[in-house]
Amino acid sequence: MKAQIITIGDEILIGQIVDTNSAWLATELNSLGISIDSIFSIADTRSAIHGALDIVPKDVRLVLMTGGLGPTKDDITKDALARWFDSGWKVDPKVLERVKEHFRLRGIPMPEVNVNQARVPEKCEVLTNSLGSAPGMWFEKNGCVFISMPGVPFEMKHIFSDAAVPEIKKKLKLQNIIHRTILTQGIGESSLMEIINEWEDGLAIDNVKLAYLPSPGAVRLRLSINDESGGKGQEIIHDRVEALLPLIKDYAFGFQRETLESVVGKLLTRYGYTLAIAESCTGGYISHLITSISGSSSYFMGSAVTYSYEAKTRALDVSQADLNDVGAVSEEVAKQMAAGVRDLYKTDFAISSTGIAGPGGGTPDKPVGTVWIGVATPTETFALKFSMGDKRERNIRKTALQALQLLRKEIIKSVKISELESLYLK
Amino acid sequence: MKAQIITIGDEILIGQIVDTNSAWLATELNSLGISIDSIFSIADTRSAIHGALDIVPKDVRLVLMTGGLGPTKDDITKDALARWFDSGWKVDPKVLERVKEHFRLRGIPMPEVNVNQARVPEKCEVLTNSLGSAPGMWFEKNGCVFISMPGVPFEMKHIFSDAAVPEIKKKLKLQNIIHRTILTQGIGESSLMEIINEWEDGLAIDNVKLAYLPSPGAVRLRLSINDESGGKGQEIIHDRVEALLPLIKDYAFGFQRETLESVVGKLLTRYGYTLAIAESCTGGYISHLITSISGSSSYFMGSAVTYSYEAKTRALDVSQADLNDVGAVSEEVAKQMAAGVRDLYKTDFAISSTGIAGPGGGTPDKPVGTVWIGVATPTETFALKFSMGDKRERNIRKTALQALQLLRKEIIKSVKISELESLYLK
Repeated sequence: MKAQIITIGDEILIGQIVDTNSAWLATELNSLGISIDSIFSIADTRSAIHGALDIVPKDVRLVLMTGGLGPTKDDITKDALARWFDSGWKVDPKVLERVKEHFRLRGIPMPEVNVNQARVPEKCEVLTNSLGSAPGMWFEKNGCVFISMPGVPFEMKHIFSDAAVPEIKKKLKLQNIIHRTILTQGIGESSLMEIINEWEDGLAIDNVKLAYLPSPGAVRLRLSINDESGGKGQEIIHDRVEALLPLIKDYAFGFQRETLESVVGKLLTRYGYTLAIAESCTGGYISHLITSISGSSSYFMGSAVTYSYEAKTRALDVSQADLNDVGAVSEEVAKQMAAGVRDLYKTDFAISSTGIAGPGGGTPDKPVGTVWIGVATPTETFALKFSMGDKRERNIRKTALQALQLLRKEIIKSVKISELESLYLK
Repeated sequence: MKAQIITIGDEILIGQIVDTNSAWLATELNSLGISIDSIFSIADTRSAIHGALDIVPKDVRLVLMTGGLGPTKDDITKDALARWFDSGWKVDPKVLERVKEHFRLRGIPMPEVNVNQARVPEKCEVLTNSLGSAPGMWFEKNGCVFISMPGVPFEMKHIFSDAAVPEIKKKLKLQNIIHRTILTQGIGESSLMEIINEWEDGLAIDNVKLAYLPSPGAVRLRLSINDESGGKGQEIIHDRVEALLPLIKDYAFGFQRETLESVVGKLLTRYGYTLAIAESCTGGYISHLITSISGSSSYFMGSAVTYSYEAKTRALDVSQADLNDVGAVSEEVAKQMAAGVRDLYKTDFAISSTGIAGPGGGTPDKPVGTVWIGVATPTETFALKFSMGDKRERNIRKTALQALQLLRKEIIKSVKISELESLYLK
């Protein structure tokens, strides 16, 4: 089963945005057992859209289009589709209601132009978009399914997962591919490869496939098996994962779509612990990750982001003498920051970061990327040193993930469960 | 002058990597006045490569290919190109020398397979790659130039800029396309459209094109003109922008690739002001944005992220009585948070956020999305109420941008420059 992705819009063609929608869709399609023939990014013009549709390869049975569905003048996808599918128009009452509701909720009168959003080609089935006003559309022609979705990533993802995938599964005979993703932090792709090399070689016997999916500070390992025969696939994957985990127990933190912040949140919630954070080089990013989890207010009390020496002494009682003697990027200051914020917010656990995010500020002793992470628990306070490389954005992300991993290990230690047991906590 | 970009390699098609090469090339080509017809990502197979080359649109005069030029088995681009251009082979002595040098410098014996890298199709001109062993190749056929480059970003960028661009300029008569992007915050795409409708209608006279590029909480407006006649384009765009700005002065905050955090940083730096932040519902995200700017340590002192009532009273001296009487999501508390953090870190300006990010926590009085943003300046403290909708992630982002916009306006007010003047500050 082959699919093609077509992204519509000038913003990709002029390099103004990077096309992340396609990578996301490609991953999702792969997990459904659908392989991507090609990804095509084209202009927001009728001729470009028709041109792309005219040359869809013959063996492609699913075409996913994103972009060009907003209410404004430069969005002409819908019109181009109506013409290509030789279709008249209808007003979809559900979509109209949704558009009106969208504005009613915000207390804004609906601009007349938005009525157009409820106008869809007669020949399409509407795929509901409950997060925005532009609907998804499902067409069929010559045995191929064509799905058009808005380009706004969160709307596209929602329409695809909630409305399109169930229909795709029904309509197209899909192979049953089973995936299991194991999440790791704190080890690079090639080091990980060396550790699990022998285990990896054994996968071929059962036709299990492995993909390394690296991102800054984290590598996901995805196991896949084509379970057409039915039945054995789940079991095979389960056994392989059980054999893998002991090899990577220092790095593995969860499965599938979990994140370090969600795993930490789960542990804090389960054991009734509270958390505070003191951030210097990460500048609020660890707090942002923690609070991106809904329900985090039950365990997260607060943070102090202390970017200057004075802020560190005023908000966290860090010793001025230590700042002068050993500098802010030091074991002493990392420990005092963690202990200070734990004390300020009266929490069970606290973590801290202090380092040189770059690009400036490095010295021969403390080059850019030098980071101390502090941890304060009910029983001890300590700090560890890391080298995170020389890119500011990556440094901040890698430091945040490393801090959450250290926190995770301390929580596990305090409740006396093993690394492996902890992975299966719900 | 139109170009097409073709990226070759399975890693994009399975979603393993996001295609950033194309965005980079597109930006470079646009700045040369070359517009991109389309971007095509295809598999690493001869048939896919031939298929893509067979359907290059007739008006495309430049095709840039990236990927598939390494020494390993799955890289078959070079072979596919030799066949498509109906070419024999040659060994390029310069490339061979470079490949040998590459290994000599690293003190590694050259694997025999790498000799193949010096083998290139007879019909190509070699584009020197001084950062790696895979050469760039320049072909011509039917009045179209085809350039093949390796997929490793830094090698590709180097070959393109240093070897390809000078040849492209010589060979092809280039148009001059001029872009200008105006950035707005605090107004939706369709409302913006109504405000500038009349102005927009007038663009056609000069063949100026407008694109709306929305993202949560912000809309970019991009003007483009094909400056073929030479000279007038800059002037036309300038005049159009000058006519637009007064219409959107409450929302516009910058141009091109600026961000609200970079604009605020620029203003704080220029006027020697300092900033502190108190965050509740944004949970550290405003601080993260501010500190994502390198050099922010010169104006950003610190933040208090106070997620609980107790954190607000302990860290920021918020009145317990007010928390009990009117709740955390209130004008009083937003003001006290801003004033409290300004006092704690002794800064010139402070902003605060307190709201219901969702999805839980809403009440009839204060539905999800209700947010108060506080601002404390050297002369006053106030708070404003907003409704940000019902999606947690978007709420956080929109609230952060709104807070930065309010801060920006207060800084401008305090130094007595107008909204329009401020846009041109360097």
